[in-house]
Amino acid sequence: MGIGNAIVDILTHTDEELLAAEGLPKGSMTLIDGARADAIYARMGPGVEVSGGSVANSVAGAASLGSRTAYIGKVHDDEFGRVFAHDIRALGVHFETPLATGGAPTARCFILVTPDAHRTMSTYLGACVELGPEDIDEELIARSAVTYLEGYLWDPPRAREALQVASAAARRAGRRVALSLSDAFCVERHRDEFRAHVDGSVDILFANEMELLALYESPDLATAVAEVQGRCEVALVTRSEHGSMVVTEDDIVDVPAHTVGRVVDTTGAGDLYAAGFLHGFTHGLSHADSAALGARAAAEVISHFGARPEADLSELARATLS
Amino acid sequence: MGIGNAIVDILTHTDEELLAAEGLPKGSMTLIDGARADAIYARMGPGVEVSGGSVANSVAGAASLGSRTAYIGKVHDDEFGRVFAHDIRALGVHFETPLATGGAPTARCFILVTPDAHRTMSTYLGACVELGPEDIDEELIARSAVTYLEGYLWDPPRAREALQVASAAARRAGRRVALSLSDAFCVERHRDEFRAHVDGSVDILFANEMELLALYESPDLATAVAEVQGRCEVALVTRSEHGSMVVTEDDIVDVPAHTVGRVVDTTGAGDLYAAGFLHGFTHGLSHADSAALGARAAAEVISHFGARPEADLSELARATLS
Repeated sequence: MGIGNAIVDILTHTDEELLAAEGLPKGSMTLIDGARADAIYARMGPGVEVSGGSVANSVAGAASLGSRTAYIGKVHDDEFGRVFAHDIRALGVHFETPLATGGAPTARCFILVTPDAHRTMSTYLGACVELGPEDIDEELIARSAVTYLEGYLWDPPRAREALQVASAAARRAGRRVALSLSDAFCVERHRDEFRAHVDGSVDILFANEMELLALYESPDLATAVAEVQGRCEVALVTRSEHGSMVVTEDDIVDVPAHTVGRVVDTTGAGDLYAAGFLHGFTHGLSHADSAALGARAAAEVISHFGARPEADLSELARATLS
Repeated sequence: MGIGNAIVDILTHTDEELLAAEGLPKGSMTLIDGARADAIYARMGPGVEVSGGSVANSVAGAASLGSRTAYIGKVHDDEFGRVFAHDIRALGVHFETPLATGGAPTARCFILVTPDAHRTMSTYLGACVELGPEDIDEELIARSAVTYLEGYLWDPPRAREALQVASAAARRAGRRVALSLSDAFCVERHRDEFRAHVDGSVDILFANEMELLALYESPDLATAVAEVQGRCEVALVTRSEHGSMVVTEDDIVDVPAHTVGRVVDTTGAGDLYAAGFLHGFTHGLSHADSAALGARAAAEVISHFGARPEADLSELARATLS
């Protein structure tokens, strides 16, 4: 079960100048309002629209790997909302969150991909601010092995209540809660709440190096890893081409990155890593083998434009799990 | 100046089974109504949305090559319509056709790409049926070296009146009219009108082998070429990997295809061939050199998913024109 901000991505190739002109730090995610969204869209080049949202990408990836999955997130009853709903359901994901009919349109994220394949995101949350506790299907969560939340859910105010309800429902049922820290700027915005949630509710934590440093305001990776170790069942620290670290109470295992021919667009790498890990984890693989599957799923998604898998990942899952 | 059906493409990877189940002949374009569109969308996999439309793709390609371009086509004032308008304007194309505010939503084309890289299209014309003579900017046409029409414009009823007005305006101003036959099924639907337009108004004709055979109900290519020769200033007969034929009153020149590494998706090959040809033609290249530039532009677009160029084609244009 994934819960997140339901977003349609608008991807474009760009140069560094547009990032500088718009004051967007490369690799970050900036929250923007509707007026800023219109302004950025007017300046950017032709786009490609693809369903996105961090945890939604992970759920799509896990479904493609063969997991039984569900998703909760809020879109408006508009064309982008129908595109989002179609794309996730077409993968067999259970998605029944009622569409918003009043208020803002479906959320969109402008993803500016520079020639070095890095992506810089500007997100207009739109209908995501309508997500609330009433959208949480506690019964479905009680039946889900893992409920996976994204840190970005702390941005829209009522979604925080929703994720508390969801986390409590998962724990009451003896199920696991997973959390992605989403991005270092997001950690800066919500550090105290994130720390409290990690300590009180999270079994599986996904963070990249920058996010973990931000969470514990640590001077270096070793200190940050020592800080997180033992706070949850397993923490996965992703380090791009340096692979990932699997941090459990008693052990730290390094898992290498999976090599790819050409990196086209890093959008979705972390999301697909989580997809691979959670698929392996819920299908009986060890933490380290699950992390290796995560690395392979991430390698697929960075080999093309966009954050959803293009290849049918089921072959990959079969090869890994057999 | 391009005039065509303004469409947002929804591309997906598919297998042959879906084509068979939906009764869609591979490689064709089928017109569908709203109910059929909903049914096909419900059956197809996750999609990627990209602005499309045959002549709109050509105009986008020509703009990317460095041509000064304009486009006339009808979208609704909805999210897909705004996406279409953004994408074409972001390339510097003059696009000021008033958005439709009543009636059907923006047109969409479901493009099913099979593992052999062929694409099969189902088009819901939506707001395109609102295009009429009142949308034709005759003054702008009079200032355009070439006015390029697509055969698909014969499908929505009022667009036929629009293209007659546009063709007449171009000819009155001593400008050229170009026409794409669009697809063989489209030729079957409108053969007599196409023949009359070729004889009466067209200077530059784009057709693939099947379309030319359909137009003249010819038993073989040589007969069809003999039929078209001399009817317009130049006919470009595209033959996929066999290259293209440049047919003028006195001459027939074969131009080889441009080799590509891997064919990912043939969507847009004909559209970009026309873009390259028209860019070369309006910048002083010979017919044959223009056709070679068309072949190179086509090679770029079939190397990736979607019908709009991903690479900046201006380098290609500079290399060819210098």
